[in-house]
Amino acid sequence: MAQISLSRRLRRTPFSEGVEAAGVKAYTVYNRMLLPTVFESVEDDYRHLKTHVQVWDVSCERQVELRGPEATRLMQMLTPRDLRGMLPGQCFYVPIVDETGGMLNDPVAVKLSEDRWWISIADSDLLLWVKGIANGYRLDVLVDEPDVSPLAVQGPKADELMSRVFGDRVRDVRFFKFDMFDFQGRDLAVARSGYSKQGGFEIYVEGSDIGMPLWNALFEAGKDLNVRAGCPNLIERIEGGLLSYGNDMTDDNTPHECGLGKFCNTHTAIGCIGRDALLRVAKEGPVQQIRPLAIDGDPVPACHGTWPILAGGKRVGQVTSAAWSPDFKTNVSIGMLRLSHWDAGTEVMVETPQGTRRAVVQEKFWI
Amino acid sequence: MAQISLSRRLRRTPFSEGVEAAGVKAYTVYNRMLLPTVFESVEDDYRHLKTHVQVWDVSCERQVELRGPEATRLMQMLTPRDLRGMLPGQCFYVPIVDETGGMLNDPVAVKLSEDRWWISIADSDLLLWVKGIANGYRLDVLVDEPDVSPLAVQGPKADELMSRVFGDRVRDVRFFKFDMFDFQGRDLAVARSGYSKQGGFEIYVEGSDIGMPLWNALFEAGKDLNVRAGCPNLIERIEGGLLSYGNDMTDDNTPHECGLGKFCNTHTAIGCIGRDALLRVAKEGPVQQIRPLAIDGDPVPACHGTWPILAGGKRVGQVTSAAWSPDFKTNVSIGMLRLSHWDAGTEVMVETPQGTRRAVVQEKFWI
Repeated sequence: MAQISLSRRLRRTPFSEGVEAAGVKAYTVYNRMLLPTVFESVEDDYRHLKTHVQVWDVSCERQVELRGPEATRLMQMLTPRDLRGMLPGQCFYVPIVDETGGMLNDPVAVKLSEDRWWISIADSDLLLWVKGIANGYRLDVLVDEPDVSPLAVQGPKADELMSRVFGDRVRDVRFFKFDMFDFQGRDLAVARSGYSKQGGFEIYVEGSDIGMPLWNALFEAGKDLNVRAGCPNLIERIEGGLLSYGNDMTDDNTPHECGLGKFCNTHTAIGCIGRDALLRVAKEGPVQQIRPLAIDGDPVPACHGTWPILAGGKRVGQVTSAAWSPDFKTNVSIGMLRLSHWDAGTEVMVETPQGTRRAVVQEKFWI
Repeated sequence: MAQISLSRRLRRTPFSEGVEAAGVKAYTVYNRMLLPTVFESVEDDYRHLKTHVQVWDVSCERQVELRGPEATRLMQMLTPRDLRGMLPGQCFYVPIVDETGGMLNDPVAVKLSEDRWWISIADSDLLLWVKGIANGYRLDVLVDEPDVSPLAVQGPKADELMSRVFGDRVRDVRFFKFDMFDFQGRDLAVARSGYSKQGGFEIYVEGSDIGMPLWNALFEAGKDLNVRAGCPNLIERIEGGLLSYGNDMTDDNTPHECGLGKFCNTHTAIGCIGRDALLRVAKEGPVQQIRPLAIDGDPVPACHGTWPILAGGKRVGQVTSAAWSPDFKTNVSIGMLRLSHWDAGTEVMVETPQGTRRAVVQEKFWI
């Protein structure tokens, strides 16, 4: 396995010192920033995440801030999800589409107030698209990347750990809501959210200087909870059906293909740039869609690209993420399948780098 | 040193098979694509590059294609360089700026015809900015990323190797010009350009399927020239003053701060989006600028962030790239310095992770 060459271009985070001290073994790069991928091993990290509590440096979920009288108008231009009913204090998962309905990102929109939003982005320079749109339409809005770095606390003991640092009130934060909490005199947004199915929070750490003090406070408070540094876990996120932009979907795909049609209110999302194209898609329905697939046999190798899915010798889709699941004793995977072969129970063949395997389309993801 | 976790999101290239077979030891990620950084060692690769010829997988220099009646108008909106005199067959190095004059990229613009351009980009999703601008201004132009992956041939024996594969006519291509050459029935643009000072070419490989055939043809033809797989070399590019977007400059910087004022014709670049801001900068001049600095002492450690530059105890700049130069027997580096301390011969102090070192501002880069 190759090493990673570090440079300023692969940005460090406010928590990098803590991540290194915790013995990070591997990184990926996400939004031109370092994202840890392994501490002990993917399997050990998985077991620990499901049993205890982890602190994740997800600074790479950069924020695009919209501020000004036309911030809400601009936010609605970006997405087919109808945002009219959204209140300050809410977080919405929003597909972002271009004029053809192709997905540019799948972030969480955080509504701070009527004229101030954060978009907590997946892996694409969404800032540049939003700046270009704001400039081209001459909108009265400021668009930039603030000094905000999310820190996630995930796992079954997350409520206990967070209440020790932020007080018991943090337990009352509901799913995909946020509230403001004090840490060393700073007011931080804390949301009940995160890229796992084990429960937990994301702290929007505003101001790099308090990154390590907060990191240290969490580890100090969580010693007896067996808190560890962690990171989004490949196995757990596939089991949970958490999609990864750039892996499971790209700008080639519509939200409907990605199973995100439920987040599209295309008729009423007036102003959305991709609305015309998506009205057509909503009418006709997608011809391919993301599905969970169980792949037979021994653990599959790491999936570094796309694996063709065949049926009757013809290509009917591709696998984009795959891993052996210790809990479900099968290879869990995410694939894009043609409508002729996407029904649960359908048997297909997957071409892995270590040979062709039988796979079965699942009714739903594992967790 | 940490490993890199591969996934579809860190895109492989048409040449990845060749790069792996050649024993790549480390990667960086550039435009969400794998870019090799080390084969033997940075020092060995450096010596070989200056002596023989290397083939570089620089697919990560993705192209943004502009096509249509308003392609040239859009291209001029992106840059303060006056493009009116540019002819098809020419390549121009163009700073790309936002409405405040901040640099979004420093690509090479390739003019294929009056209504078709490629922008060969540095490390930022420029595609999203250009798509946003084209959409916002409702321009009559198609903007996308074509299946084009540059392959560079660099080093003193580059002309000899290239002439064996493409014929002697390739020797006549002049600096920053390109012409079309046949390879196995395909017409490929070949430019005399590249991210080294050792001379050579960049082949714009259109169609991933001919990537490995071309790779193999170059290695077959170059056996007696000691051809090797290589990559942009940290030491050589600092010696040569080749800037790296994201390392030596960011969207915080104007072209003038980066010493790229000579590529700005701000008065006559009518239509450039950042023109108003840059007219102000051109009038007043920058207050900080990029300079070569020689850092005293033993080889410095790898530069993974920014190193503060001090004078009289006050911060006067930062080093952004640094390496020990075997040829010049000093630490070569690139820094951004306040105008009070940017004159050649000025002595400053650099805070490296291994202590403070004396450094001297140089008149010019080393090669």
